[in-house]
Amino acid sequence: MHNKIRLGLIGGGPRSFIGPVHRIAAYMVEEFDLTGGVFDVDFEHSLSFAKALELDSNRCYKDLDAFITGESKLPEDTRIEVVVILTPNYLHFEMAKKLIEGGFDIICEKPVTVYASEAEELSLLTQKHGTKFCLTHTYTGYPMVRQMKSMIEEGKLGRIQKVDAQYYQGWINPFIHDSEKRKQVWRLDPAVAGQSCCMGDIGVHAFNLIEYTTGLKVQKVLSDLETLYDDNPLDVDGTVLIRMENGAKGVVRSSQIASGEENNIIISVYGKDGGLKWAQEDPTYLHYLPEGEPAQVLKPGNPYNSEFAMDSTKIPPGHPEGLFDAMGNIYKGFSKAIRGESYFNGAFPGIEDGVRGMRFIEAVLRSNAEGQAWVEI
Amino acid sequence: MHNKIRLGLIGGGPRSFIGPVHRIAAYMVEEFDLTGGVFDVDFEHSLSFAKALELDSNRCYKDLDAFITGESKLPEDTRIEVVVILTPNYLHFEMAKKLIEGGFDIICEKPVTVYASEAEELSLLTQKHGTKFCLTHTYTGYPMVRQMKSMIEEGKLGRIQKVDAQYYQGWINPFIHDSEKRKQVWRLDPAVAGQSCCMGDIGVHAFNLIEYTTGLKVQKVLSDLETLYDDNPLDVDGTVLIRMENGAKGVVRSSQIASGEENNIIISVYGKDGGLKWAQEDPTYLHYLPEGEPAQVLKPGNPYNSEFAMDSTKIPPGHPEGLFDAMGNIYKGFSKAIRGESYFNGAFPGIEDGVRGMRFIEAVLRSNAEGQAWVEI
Amino acid sequence: MHNKIRLGLIGGGPRSFIGPVHRIAAYMVEEFDLTGGVFDVDFEHSLSFAKALELDSNRCYKDLDAFITGESKLPEDTRIEVVVILTPNYLHFEMAKKLIEGGFDIICEKPVTVYASEAEELSLLTQKHGTKFCLTHTYTGYPMVRQMKSMIEEGKLGRIQKVDAQYYQGWINPFIHDSEKRKQVWRLDPAVAGQSCCMGDIGVHAFNLIEYTTGLKVQKVLSDLETLYDDNPLDVDGTVLIRMENGAKGVVRSSQIASGEENNIIISVYGKDGGLKWAQEDPTYLHYLPEGEPAQVLKPGNPYNSEFAMDSTKIPPGHPEGLFDAMGNIYKGFSKAIRGESYFNGAFPGIEDGVRGMRFIEAVLRSNAEGQAWVEI
Amino acid sequence: MHNKIRLGLIGGGPRSFIGPVHRIAAYMVEEFDLTGGVFDVDFEHSLSFAKALELDSNRCYKDLDAFITGESKLPEDTRIEVVVILTPNYLHFEMAKKLIEGGFDIICEKPVTVYASEAEELSLLTQKHGTKFCLTHTYTGYPMVRQMKSMIEEGKLGRIQKVDAQYYQGWINPFIHDSEKRKQVWRLDPAVAGQSCCMGDIGVHAFNLIEYTTGLKVQKVLSDLETLYDDNPLDVDGTVLIRMENGAKGVVRSSQIASGEENNIIISVYGKDGGLKWAQEDPTYLHYLPEGEPAQVLKPGNPYNSEFAMDSTKIPPGHPEGLFDAMGNIYKGFSKAIRGESYFNGAFPGIEDGVRGMRFIEAVLRSNAEGQAWVEI
Repeated sequence: MHNKIRLGLIGGGPRSFIGPVHRIAAYMVEEFDLTGGVFDVDFEHSLSFAKALELDSNRCYKDLDAFITGESKLPEDTRIEVVVILTPNYLHFEMAKKLIEGGFDIICEKPVTVYASEAEELSLLTQKHGTKFCLTHTYTGYPMVRQMKSMIEEGKLGRIQKVDAQYYQGWINPFIHDSEKRKQVWRLDPAVAGQSCCMGDIGVHAFNLIEYTTGLKVQKVLSDLETLYDDNPLDVDGTVLIRMENGAKGVVRSSQIASGEENNIIISVYGKDGGLKWAQEDPTYLHYLPEGEPAQVLKPGNPYNSEFAMDSTKIPPGHPEGLFDAMGNIYKGFSKAIRGESYFNGAFPGIEDGVRGMRFIEAVLRSNAEGQAWVEI
Repeated sequence: MHNKIRLGLIGGGPRSFIGPVHRIAAYMVEEFDLTGGVFDVDFEHSLSFAKALELDSNRCYKDLDAFITGESKLPEDTRIEVVVILTPNYLHFEMAKKLIEGGFDIICEKPVTVYASEAEELSLLTQKHGTKFCLTHTYTGYPMVRQMKSMIEEGKLGRIQKVDAQYYQGWINPFIHDSEKRKQVWRLDPAVAGQSCCMGDIGVHAFNLIEYTTGLKVQKVLSDLETLYDDNPLDVDGTVLIRMENGAKGVVRSSQIASGEENNIIISVYGKDGGLKWAQEDPTYLHYLPEGEPAQVLKPGNPYNSEFAMDSTKIPPGHPEGLFDAMGNIYKGFSKAIRGESYFNGAFPGIEDGVRGMRFIEAVLRSNAEGQAWVEI
Repeated sequence: MHNKIRLGLIGGGPRSFIGPVHRIAAYMVEEFDLTGGVFDVDFEHSLSFAKALELDSNRCYKDLDAFITGESKLPEDTRIEVVVILTPNYLHFEMAKKLIEGGFDIICEKPVTVYASEAEELSLLTQKHGTKFCLTHTYTGYPMVRQMKSMIEEGKLGRIQKVDAQYYQGWINPFIHDSEKRKQVWRLDPAVAGQSCCMGDIGVHAFNLIEYTTGLKVQKVLSDLETLYDDNPLDVDGTVLIRMENGAKGVVRSSQIASGEENNIIISVYGKDGGLKWAQEDPTYLHYLPEGEPAQVLKPGNPYNSEFAMDSTKIPPGHPEGLFDAMGNIYKGFSKAIRGESYFNGAFPGIEDGVRGMRFIEAVLRSNAEGQAWVEI
Repeated sequence: MHNKIRLGLIGGGPRSFIGPVHRIAAYMVEEFDLTGGVFDVDFEHSLSFAKALELDSNRCYKDLDAFITGESKLPEDTRIEVVVILTPNYLHFEMAKKLIEGGFDIICEKPVTVYASEAEELSLLTQKHGTKFCLTHTYTGYPMVRQMKSMIEEGKLGRIQKVDAQYYQGWINPFIHDSEKRKQVWRLDPAVAGQSCCMGDIGVHAFNLIEYTTGLKVQKVLSDLETLYDDNPLDVDGTVLIRMENGAKGVVRSSQIASGEENNIIISVYGKDGGLKWAQEDPTYLHYLPEGEPAQVLKPGNPYNSEFAMDSTKIPPGHPEGLFDAMGNIYKGFSKAIRGESYFNGAFPGIEDGVRGMRFIEAVLRSNAEGQAWVEI
């Protein structure tokens, strides 16, 4: 029997987009206890957020230094153990450094830093301090990405001979063409986003999925980047020829000006004995093309999956993991009702739906018993 | 500013399949505080479950009566407000009755009861006691089901003239053909499952989706049920002709012997001005067929959706809601590492992945800057 | 070595919609020689059609009687052997009768007649006269429908326990709601269309696919038909509960008011050991759901298919059969150019496209040879 | 009123794979009359092929020179006008040259020649002689490719800013890894195939689709080719960075070692105002992503298509063009029956299927008339 792991957040508060993804992930596994943090740069926002989540306001700090100082004073069995860094990219490095030195384990949003040299420094520091460090390349958490990794590991594809990974978005498109609107996009501002927009934000995911699924390193790259306008300093699109460590060739394709695309990530890996393909927008399907045989479609939760993939699914086959979100929406609707807040019609089914359902079932049974006769509900 | 709603569970503990779906849903919306309950029929299991979740063991009760007595003694601002009923079907009615009379609001798994008369009695009781009651027809929580409902409400389809809902599964197939294995399936046992297997378990979902999305009641049914073997008392398949209150005809199709199917739910609604189709295994796509125009594919999170559908999505377009689960898997992997437990290789990306990502980005930038030259990572 | 079979058409001329499908089918197999017929009720139209196809105008007849008399006078090795009946439904019976008695073999569009009694009479006549008779249930010609049939025959699904066939269209929708426009639709006129609109036109295809693929007869039906308006005499929608000869239950669903649907035919057959599903609008995919294993997707032309399915494909895997039509379009465009007729820009690729293609290939080779350098085309 | 165009074939006879595609295309449009040719290098094969097709054996020639001489002697209104070149690639140039000089119009399989310089020479020759020349880049004949071209022409996408074309196959995979089996593949033999395997055979299609749909020229390329083995001289895979004449960047991806892939051609074009995507294996769907609006799916035959796309479809919406092939298969089956040859069970529906269909319809009507009662067929 063990206790929950005490978790702190730096960022990820009321005005964060990625915050809920991390908080919900932490709740989901029932292994973490959200204990405190620095939820927002504005302390007032931070405090009221802590209150809403019914956290101890003493564990809500003004800034990272206060956090480290405050938590370090607490007894070991009370102190926050793991800190999630959800601040803008350019802050990751300094914060991670302080936290590592402060003895905390770390979960960090990507990109880990702005420069590779910083990441390397952090790597050395984690070794020195024995820090546990998790970088949230979220797509590697999908069950069928893990099944893909498992199948390649088991040798189902034989020697890998070709890889192709795509991450196409279109969201920057309406901004990039208007030099005024463009200023709203912090990712296009080198001061905040760092050296790269498209490659740093999404190309790196495609790269990561290749190394993750194949277990092979990319050794060399040749890239062709696009900024679209001369007065736009950062890349918004790029194609990268790659060479894997085993000699296989491949390509990483990444774009934020693929107008109309949402998060169209596709990874295809081909080996001597077959191919595997996965697309993020349809994450429950893994396409397996065994040489000379009919294509197969694997889905989560089925016993034919690897132990790793099986352990990455919480529900039986045929329910997309998004089922939890569907249920969450119903709980949300009900919470509004409990609080007497007005909300949308149809936000949760009530007892009358139960009555109707039971009447339906009974009418169906009676109709059948009477030899397929019409029965009123 | 409001406090979280105190939530209790009856059932849903360590040995429950549906328990995690409810707990995670409750965590997700950050509006509920799981406070106590009767987690398992075996009190020891129940207690150790409470401990694992770091709940106050005084709020872990032996049975429902103890729960009601115990909670009722507590001051109002401490007492559990909402109770989730996750016990076997045949217990729902008695439990719900006691809880309503005890002054609790209720979230109840479907089917709400075993007989319609029971559901009707509960309905009256909720009115008498002012009970808030939520029945978890989970599929109505999907953003695109809600978008479908909104579009029909807005009149996009005109008068509804045809409805067709399907719920095809195959999971009973390997059991039904073997009279020994069949005994393992409680859903086939009338003593536990009630009057119906297929219709009560899944047909009712198809029925519910029709009434939910169209806002129209089903008025009459004519059904044809299949038990497959004479010594199997309950239906495992059925087709139901239906007549809607507006006169439209339709069909509910439901099967647990559609071998190989997982949870193949499809709802199609056709009106004078177009059609709408949604499939549960691909829940992020809503297919809209406007009369005389190209088909449209709507996806969650896009501003063209209704306010209700928008409020039912937590992330921007193109990320399936299952993204939370992917992130949850990464948190899970990291929690194992924190605890020093052995787990799967690749369970979470670490600092080395961060280093590699940054090196990739920098190599890509250098290659481009050098006029598309090869650069080693 | 054999000669081509001499083919005649009754109907199917310049103003026929189905005519080209039959003529092209006949050309495709290079086994038939279109020799003559009664191409149109208007003899002038018929003659100029014959001229356009460069047929002998002596073999172009005024009516069926003239056709039978004329052809019967010719020597056996010249006489038309097979006649295709493409006239409105209500004429099929009388024409088929005369042709059978005249000693011709017959290809007939469906429905074969207006009444079952007529079909039965034709059946007896074909036996008496030794007539070869082909009814063009076209969908049974798709390679993957044949593969489905083969797999069921081979026992891949075990005992069939559930069938579901759908044919949903929406084309009548814009007509049915307007009593004036409705008159344009001959299918809604009992005098021409016969007893049924939806069932006779499309429901029967769904029925036929069930019997074709399973090899089992439908024994009983219970149907629910929809005419939508009281002053519309014929069905435009219907659901039919069915009972197969082996006791399996199933359903035939058919609609012409499924607004927005085109020719959405789906057939699903489930047996003790798995399921098979096929959809006409994606005809190159056969979905096979073997019990307990990953789903498979079979495609035409692959050696894992049955001999029958293989013999029903003319091109290697991965080229939809529609490739012939694509090539046909290019031939069409070129024929316009040859005749000096103005046509669409881009109707066929020319020598300049060849030049550009070769330059592309050479530039690509040079770029690679130079170590991945930029090369102008 | 015009006569059919007299067509000759060089190659494309009994042992040709591409022959039937051309012959059927020619039959389909009912504008060509296959008159003669050199069908096979072996004159005996050629003659018996002519006989099977009931062609005048005097128009069947031993070789190209005999063909040119023979046809040139014939009166103009008898002489073959258009010649289709279907011989191995390396013969195209010399043959085309002779035919141009002989006064014939030409349809030629791709690649047009082995070297760009040859293609350029042919181009000059066609100008000099006024030759009409068609290069069969078949994929440009698909209705939805033409619709894509039309929409880009109409400016639906605005300025093109990104293009991505893929042609992935896996068929060479089982050969390339075995140096013995490899010798069976003429495409890998430079003496026959020319300078390139993958790029020349399929990469050029991807290239062509880009120029065809966008109406823009590719200006520069940077390529990375793969031969997989040192003793394999020709490319079997390659990625090509491209720069369009309007400055847009893009990529052509082509592979014959994408194991398990069949003819996976995908073209994606993104502009300032939206995107368009088309995949050859699902040719009836054109995906249109208008900026800020729901995605649309366009299908052939619908009036919302361009005039050019409409003119490239022969049947109403919802029937894949492969329907012709399905019908062709039924004609094939019936031709076997006519000849008394044994063939597959189920190869064509007969009168008994007609009887059953009519009985089904009548039973359905009776059941409904009797208030949804069971009726035996």
